[in-house]
Amino acid sequence: MKKEIYLDHASTTYTDPRVLGAMLPYFSEKYGNPQSRHSKGKEALIAIDNAREKIAEILNCRPSEIIFTSGGTESNNLAIFGTARANQKKGKKIITSKIEHSSVIAPFKKLEKEKFKITYLDVDNEGFIDPRKLKKSIKHDTKLVSIMYANNEIGTIQKISKIGKICREKGIIFHTDACQAAGLNLNTQKLKVDLMSLNAGKIYGPKGIGILYKKREIKIEPIIYGGGQEMELRSGTHNVPAIVGIAKALEIAREEREKENNRLKELRNYLIEGILKIKDTHLNGPKANRLPNNINIYFEDIDADLLVLSLDEAGIYCSTASACKAQTTESSHVLSAIGLSENQAQSSIRFSLGKKTTQKDIDYTLKTLTQLIKKMRKY
Amino acid sequence: MKKEIYLDHASTTYTDPRVLGAMLPYFSEKYGNPQSRHSKGKEALIAIDNAREKIAEILNCRPSEIIFTSGGTESNNLAIFGTARANQKKGKKIITSKIEHSSVIAPFKKLEKEKFKITYLDVDNEGFIDPRKLKKSIKHDTKLVSIMYANNEIGTIQKISKIGKICREKGIIFHTDACQAAGLNLNTQKLKVDLMSLNAGKIYGPKGIGILYKKREIKIEPIIYGGGQEMELRSGTHNVPAIVGIAKALEIAREEREKENNRLKELRNYLIEGILKIKDTHLNGPKANRLPNNINIYFEDIDADLLVLSLDEAGIYCSTASACKAQTTESSHVLSAIGLSENQAQSSIRFSLGKKTTQKDIDYTLKTLTQLIKKMRKY
Repeated sequence: MKKEIYLDHASTTYTDPRVLGAMLPYFSEKYGNPQSRHSKGKEALIAIDNAREKIAEILNCRPSEIIFTSGGTESNNLAIFGTARANQKKGKKIITSKIEHSSVIAPFKKLEKEKFKITYLDVDNEGFIDPRKLKKSIKHDTKLVSIMYANNEIGTIQKISKIGKICREKGIIFHTDACQAAGLNLNTQKLKVDLMSLNAGKIYGPKGIGILYKKREIKIEPIIYGGGQEMELRSGTHNVPAIVGIAKALEIAREEREKENNRLKELRNYLIEGILKIKDTHLNGPKANRLPNNINIYFEDIDADLLVLSLDEAGIYCSTASACKAQTTESSHVLSAIGLSENQAQSSIRFSLGKKTTQKDIDYTLKTLTQLIKKMRKY
Repeated sequence: MKKEIYLDHASTTYTDPRVLGAMLPYFSEKYGNPQSRHSKGKEALIAIDNAREKIAEILNCRPSEIIFTSGGTESNNLAIFGTARANQKKGKKIITSKIEHSSVIAPFKKLEKEKFKITYLDVDNEGFIDPRKLKKSIKHDTKLVSIMYANNEIGTIQKISKIGKICREKGIIFHTDACQAAGLNLNTQKLKVDLMSLNAGKIYGPKGIGILYKKREIKIEPIIYGGGQEMELRSGTHNVPAIVGIAKALEIAREEREKENNRLKELRNYLIEGILKIKDTHLNGPKANRLPNNINIYFEDIDADLLVLSLDEAGIYCSTASACKAQTTESSHVLSAIGLSENQAQSSIRFSLGKKTTQKDIDYTLKTLTQLIKKMRKY
């Protein structure tokens, strides 16, 4: 059998068997529509109520502040379009950063066509925004700030509670995209966020399900209309198995977080140190305050696409940039924002470790990579 | 064990074990992101490509004309908002009917706030629209017609290809909500539709996945923006297991359609005849051109909510109205459109049969129902 070392967990993860186990009864046995009034419907309603309560406990919020969506992209779209359009009479200025995920940037590009004014904050060479600069950028008609919790490409973890504090003081709505951050602290009160996006497909849960935490006081406009599910904010028949699944995935993430993060950090540091022993290689992104599973490396004089394909042949799966944009030929806007040239960005690859990643996997990866780079540079 | 006779298949269905079986490998084994360039990603990409091709063959269209969404509600929203907004410079008039699903009506109510002018066509007392009236309603600045294929409450099957022909002649975009019609002919060329919504959760497939068929020439605007998946029309990581699932569900639906429809029609007619033997009961909706599994009955002097609950106690699960609106206390807009008073509507219930429904189930339902109505009318 072909070796398979999956180092692309930031792109998507397998579904944890415990999560799938929790979901399975809801496909063919407890298959009711939670909106139905009969027992079969109530059985499903109880399942999604329980999931909502469990998630609310993890996020330290009210169950009614959890909106189920079809994934991280929809959660980000709902947060951004929803807030911007519902509050536009009070102001059309919005602040975000230059390193957001495409599912945040693309809605902002669309809002610019609707006459919203978006400020894209610079980041430093490790990907951090400067909270003081953020504070200065806030005008009287700024209504929304959206800054991601942890970056999907270079792993930079922003000081979310500090940003939250500034926004609270200024009376501005604060959204964070936490799709890469489920392994971090998700306490919405401590983080001082008003809106927070999460999804399951990157945290060993099923694809096709996401959450938007929305603080009760915040008004948003739906993007999908119909039967009025999710407090009139997201219509459509509830995806019961997936809702059960995301709750279970978040529960497991919380339980295993500390131990798993420590394990991953050790493996990550070991891999980074090993790679940097190869001549003319550089770490992209921060040394501290970095996602425990993220590694992003610039290899001088190496075509990253070719390297990814060569690693693939050796059974090592990693990526050049965000998988969410992998079909485009543009180089990474994140790497560009931290100061890399287009050439440097196109010589950079990302490894993202996961639960099943072992020391042995990392050793094999290091060995293979060292040989490959040598060979590729020779030609 | 409590008797369980599920007669609410129009609300949602269980997932067919063959569908679930097809989906399972894509949770924890073939879990890649189709956007990833490595083998694990390609494995997933092949799966969704195969699903798309299979569906295209069933709908008699090009694979690139299939857009995967999170369900029927999103497909309807994307079709309606997408077409209306992308073509608004050419005209803001739209025609629909008074008996559409809430996921069609609610987007139109929203569009009215955006200065679109919506014509809601009357239906006759069986729920049919009059194609001649439709033709007359078309103005020079009418851009879109949206008429559902089969009604979820009373089962009326519209003459879709006739409506399609009128729209083609007039050069108007034609959308149909086919979420209840997967058991019928889905040949988009014969139906002459430009846009058609389908979902899996009502046809023994998984919840949380839908399709929008979009004829190549039709321009629409996305409602969810991000990484540019689905030909830039629906961003968000592909829900691979569910995509595999909807293809399998549609394949099974096509294979078993003829035999199963005949079986259901017999059971349906038997149940209708039996119920109509109870004094002062009336069939809502058509006798011919009715969904093979749909029964909707007005019981004089009966509180439908109470009847549904009493049937539930006897292990029979049915509904008062669309489950998608079951949480509201409004009476059905569909029953009102075919001429029932509010009181009559609130004395009406729907049974929708399914693959596992047996003659024995129907006999038990008839017996229970006859006794219950007698008892309820006595008090």
